[in-house]
Amino acid sequence: MLFETLKSIGELHKEPMDTVQRRLDSLSKPLGSLGRLEDIVRKLAGITGEIYPCVDKKAIVIMCSDNGVVEEGVSSCPKDVTSKVTRNFFRGITGINAFAKHTGSDIVVVDIGVDDDIDCEGLVKRKIRKGTWNIAKGPAMTRDEAIKAIEVGISVVGELAKKGVNLLGTGEMGIGNTTTSSAVSTVLTNSKAEDMVGRGAGLSDEALRKKISIVKKAIEVNSPDLNDPVDVLSKVGGFDIAGLAGCFIGASAYRIPILIDGFISATAALVAVRMEPKVQNFIFPSHGSAEPGSKKVLEALGFEPMLNLKMRVGEGTGAALAFHIFDCAVSVYRNMGTFEDAYIDKYMPQV
Amino acid sequence: MLFETLKSIGELHKEPMDTVQRRLDSLSKPLGSLGRLEDIVRKLAGITGEIYPCVDKKAIVIMCSDNGVVEEGVSSCPKDVTSKVTRNFFRGITGINAFAKHTGSDIVVVDIGVDDDIDCEGLVKRKIRKGTWNIAKGPAMTRDEAIKAIEVGISVVGELAKKGVNLLGTGEMGIGNTTTSSAVSTVLTNSKAEDMVGRGAGLSDEALRKKISIVKKAIEVNSPDLNDPVDVLSKVGGFDIAGLAGCFIGASAYRIPILIDGFISATAALVAVRMEPKVQNFIFPSHGSAEPGSKKVLEALGFEPMLNLKMRVGEGTGAALAFHIFDCAVSVYRNMGTFEDAYIDKYMPQV
Repeated sequence: MLFETLKSIGELHKEPMDTVQRRLDSLSKPLGSLGRLEDIVRKLAGITGEIYPCVDKKAIVIMCSDNGVVEEGVSSCPKDVTSKVTRNFFRGITGINAFAKHTGSDIVVVDIGVDDDIDCEGLVKRKIRKGTWNIAKGPAMTRDEAIKAIEVGISVVGELAKKGVNLLGTGEMGIGNTTTSSAVSTVLTNSKAEDMVGRGAGLSDEALRKKISIVKKAIEVNSPDLNDPVDVLSKVGGFDIAGLAGCFIGASAYRIPILIDGFISATAALVAVRMEPKVQNFIFPSHGSAEPGSKKVLEALGFEPMLNLKMRVGEGTGAALAFHIFDCAVSVYRNMGTFEDAYIDKYMPQV
Repeated sequence: MLFETLKSIGELHKEPMDTVQRRLDSLSKPLGSLGRLEDIVRKLAGITGEIYPCVDKKAIVIMCSDNGVVEEGVSSCPKDVTSKVTRNFFRGITGINAFAKHTGSDIVVVDIGVDDDIDCEGLVKRKIRKGTWNIAKGPAMTRDEAIKAIEVGISVVGELAKKGVNLLGTGEMGIGNTTTSSAVSTVLTNSKAEDMVGRGAGLSDEALRKKISIVKKAIEVNSPDLNDPVDVLSKVGGFDIAGLAGCFIGASAYRIPILIDGFISATAALVAVRMEPKVQNFIFPSHGSAEPGSKKVLEALGFEPMLNLKMRVGEGTGAALAFHIFDCAVSVYRNMGTFEDAYIDKYMPQV
């Protein structure tokens, strides 16, 4: 299923993009002066084929999972926070609940590997296993599990596509997942662990040094193959990263625009793009996370953050904040007057 | 009136800021992980004295004015675009109309110096004169006119304060105003004109060189006094910049949080802060404009943009986009659960 999905990913539709560009250039403003909002609308048209793209049905997929590496003491949070916050999404008291409400977005919470039995109404139960193994000692999961986890992401997006969702965000909850993301992105970007590893929820200098050494150890112990993203994912990743990579792949196949959130989500996007470069065309950045690896991974993807708020909450909060930019982009493109409407002679820049 | 208003500007209220910080630290998230959203809520509390600040009544003040320097050929737009776009604000077809709608904001359009007789319902008619004089040949306005224009901004904000507006944005429409802003900010930041002047609506390389030489000439001809912001404003500024400087001063006096938009608005903020440094406490940045001077002026103000969208439309569009970040900041602060609500032991970062 994964490989068929990858094969089905197409190119952007050029014709609607050109039509959108012509309309953008006819609007009564200096050429190109809506900046990246113009890029957004053009790319939405390329993804959906619609000349007036719609982003009125938004959802954020939150992949929740535990990570065996937490036993190495890489996080300042106790492990059971994963399970508690996963439940709290349904109690409406997390950060993403507030952001989603203010951007008119649904949230779709997926248990892809929480080390607990959770039974909340609405929870998407697709547990691969109760948490990964400890990457400092061996692989996080088998190759089969990695593929299965990616396929969870694809099928979750498939369900949302059926419901008419037309803008997706990505989020996660998983104590220890900045460690696994650091390991995956260190390998995939061929970087030093020191440049990728950050303080996560709030580590001391000493704990940060330890986290770096654990990431190095995980890479050493597992020798993941840089040219095989599924190998990297299965050896030093997590179910949440794999599930999100599946979301990016699924969104590309179903031609739904999808937003990166922070570091973990960006790492998952990089995994997906390394599996199929065309996936990049269907992805948008949102904010620049305070995690140092975030910047590096976005650069590797060829993206620049739209929001600079130094947030590091995860849960899809950055993606949700960026949804509003998409609403405004689509609205200004649709509602702004042309030069003709505005009784203004078209003033072409002489550049 | 100006000097009394300046004298009335107070400090931020420390106690509500501390209370807000305690609540932020009690929320079930890593300490500080909402990043700049936490700074926003804390500062809103310092400005308003409210522990649960409200930003539900938003307005964008748009100062419209013509600039005599346009006769030097510094803009790629014909001069009458100022008057036409000012009318178009009332026809609902400009960029800011779309953005304001999507952020639930009013727009308040002020004719502070348009070179035309405009009579739209709702237009705030406070014309100082039909456009400034050409700064390449002499001062833009008299010192009295500059003070009067600043006072227009103060009184417009005073009216909005009476109506209960609790979040303000700034915008402008005035062909030639990136030239005047370049001149004012070159002087106030003690920079080279080359580093401040940009392509505005879209100049060619040759026209850009000419614009730089005009800014240099304006500064040479007028010798504005760096230490007297009103002198700088009257000699090389514009009515729109002066009116916006008044908005920043008025917002500080009435203790209403106010957002910078792009380069022109940032320049006006710098003028206001140079007149009274305490004004800085009441101002927030929004986006980083594509105009090169924008970055320099924001730095001089000690601000970093929240949005990076390479926009250069003006009209308050960047400020309107940032309003949504304020909505989300206030909402997450109010609605997110505490560690106790979330059944999570408080995990203190060991930093």
